[in-house]
Amino acid sequence: MRDFDEHSITRAVIERFAETPDPRLKRLLTSLVTHLHDFVRDVEPSFAEWTAAIEFLTRTGKICDGNRQEFILLSDTLGVSMLVDAICHRLPEGATETTVLGPFHVAAAPEVENGADVSGGLPGEPLYVEGTVSAARGGPLGGAMVDIWHSDRDGFYDVQRSDLDHHALRARLRADADGRFRFRTIMPAAYPIPHDGPVGAMLVATRRHPWRPAHVHFMIAHPGYETLVTHVFVSGDPYLDSDAVFGVKNSLIRDYTQHAPGTMPDGTPVAVPWRQLRYDFGLKPLPVPAEEAPHA
Amino acid sequence: MRDFDEHSITRAVIERFAETPDPRLKRLLTSLVTHLHDFVRDVEPSFAEWTAAIEFLTRTGKICDGNRQEFILLSDTLGVSMLVDAICHRLPEGATETTVLGPFHVAAAPEVENGADVSGGLPGEPLYVEGTVSAARGGPLGGAMVDIWHSDRDGFYDVQRSDLDHHALRARLRADADGRFRFRTIMPAAYPIPHDGPVGAMLVATRRHPWRPAHVHFMIAHPGYETLVTHVFVSGDPYLDSDAVFGVKNSLIRDYTQHAPGTMPDGTPVAVPWRQLRYDFGLKPLPVPAEEAPHA
Repeated sequence: MRDFDEHSITRAVIERFAETPDPRLKRLLTSLVTHLHDFVRDVEPSFAEWTAAIEFLTRTGKICDGNRQEFILLSDTLGVSMLVDAICHRLPEGATETTVLGPFHVAAAPEVENGADVSGGLPGEPLYVEGTVSAARGGPLGGAMVDIWHSDRDGFYDVQRSDLDHHALRARLRADADGRFRFRTIMPAAYPIPHDGPVGAMLVATRRHPWRPAHVHFMIAHPGYETLVTHVFVSGDPYLDSDAVFGVKNSLIRDYTQHAPGTMPDGTPVAVPWRQLRYDFGLKPLPVPAEEAPHA
Repeated sequence: MRDFDEHSITRAVIERFAETPDPRLKRLLTSLVTHLHDFVRDVEPSFAEWTAAIEFLTRTGKICDGNRQEFILLSDTLGVSMLVDAICHRLPEGATETTVLGPFHVAAAPEVENGADVSGGLPGEPLYVEGTVSAARGGPLGGAMVDIWHSDRDGFYDVQRSDLDHHALRARLRADADGRFRFRTIMPAAYPIPHDGPVGAMLVATRRHPWRPAHVHFMIAHPGYETLVTHVFVSGDPYLDSDAVFGVKNSLIRDYTQHAPGTMPDGTPVAVPWRQLRYDFGLKPLPVPAEEAPHA
């Protein structure tokens, strides 16, 4: 086929995918070409604009490394990550809402005892965190794996700090037989997403700020349940209504309650003002495979 | 604003671009977000598919360097480059059709005399090329700059050959006062686009071949006219109907006529069979700026 015009070329490209063996890949590429071509016909880019787009994508790839994932930042700042999250997690009543994973999760965070101090000795306002893990509309999930990570008081994660040679503000711990967990740490802070790259340039050009409201990340796993990826945000944060990555949901905001110097619930003495967070998580059951389902 | 769902998030992201000073950038990003979100809602990607897309884009950026532009290959193989080309070049009668620039153009190719041998001594079937440059439905454009480049007999451009320390099969020359140009070279060959990267993996997964039919590239410039970027394809090439980048137009196919050993039109003796290409190009006039337009 030859002599495509600005309308017929879309059908010609889609037909070129006709022999794709994987039907899902064929569906993805067919839809991608349809929507991408519609976008191009809508905006009618100049050659200079097309070149600028090629160069933007190239710079975005080039800046990625083991500690920096600029395409995730782009997906986050265009709302695509939260859209995918919403589509992937249509939740039953009682299940905790989800939000973006973000680029700072580490697969093999240190495993600690339930109740441990995960501050790694970093300075900040002491924070006591406690909660439960249950099935959505169900009972406690004893032994659930609770993976937590958050920023330091200046808004930096351990992996962003070249002065740290160990993990801090990051750990995995197991809930007890009743699904209860607790740990001690310091207060997280609001922080800007990395904005010295192409995504930062996009934010500047569109007069958007790069800030995320303060939060603690949770990833909670238990056999038979969908792994929960979420944050708990600090109420009152000035960026709750303008999170650069559109990740805030009202159900994920909590008071990090303030306390005078004294004793934490686990008996730890604390000589300065401290904060307390409680959150009870609900996990979505995975579908039961057909061969295991009870007969109707 | 908080608690976006899979439909309301699109409006929320678009509103975040409300303060963009450049109205064209605002329009581009608004349309991009609209179509990108529609694509995501259409295919409902899994988290694993979203991750695969992030990794594909990252690899595509990483493999780019001074001699390799994988995002242009991606744009080419998805038909986006030819779609942009069609939109940017709605041509008047008599104007030569356009096609993709491709990744092998070099801005500062050597300038040679009209009539020169540009083969750089590379072996192949001798080819004599001649033609004219005119205004679309108008007279000759004396002194037009004719920039040409093409592959060797094995399908490689000079910039792909680590054994070459000089440019070959690539030159710029000026048409004479009557808009006529000619040069000697060797026959180009069909070739696969670079397919050892992410775009090649996409072609393999979709059972598409990476081949382009044989062609000579032309970029022709003259003050007051839109610079023409096009190819002239070799008739009979087996890939004319399945060009990996959708670049073929019937008006750009020519016989590269075969001749017995003898003498080329410029008097050059040739002891082996040789070929001849003739193409007459028409350039599209640029719009006349308002202050220079004649009064109606």
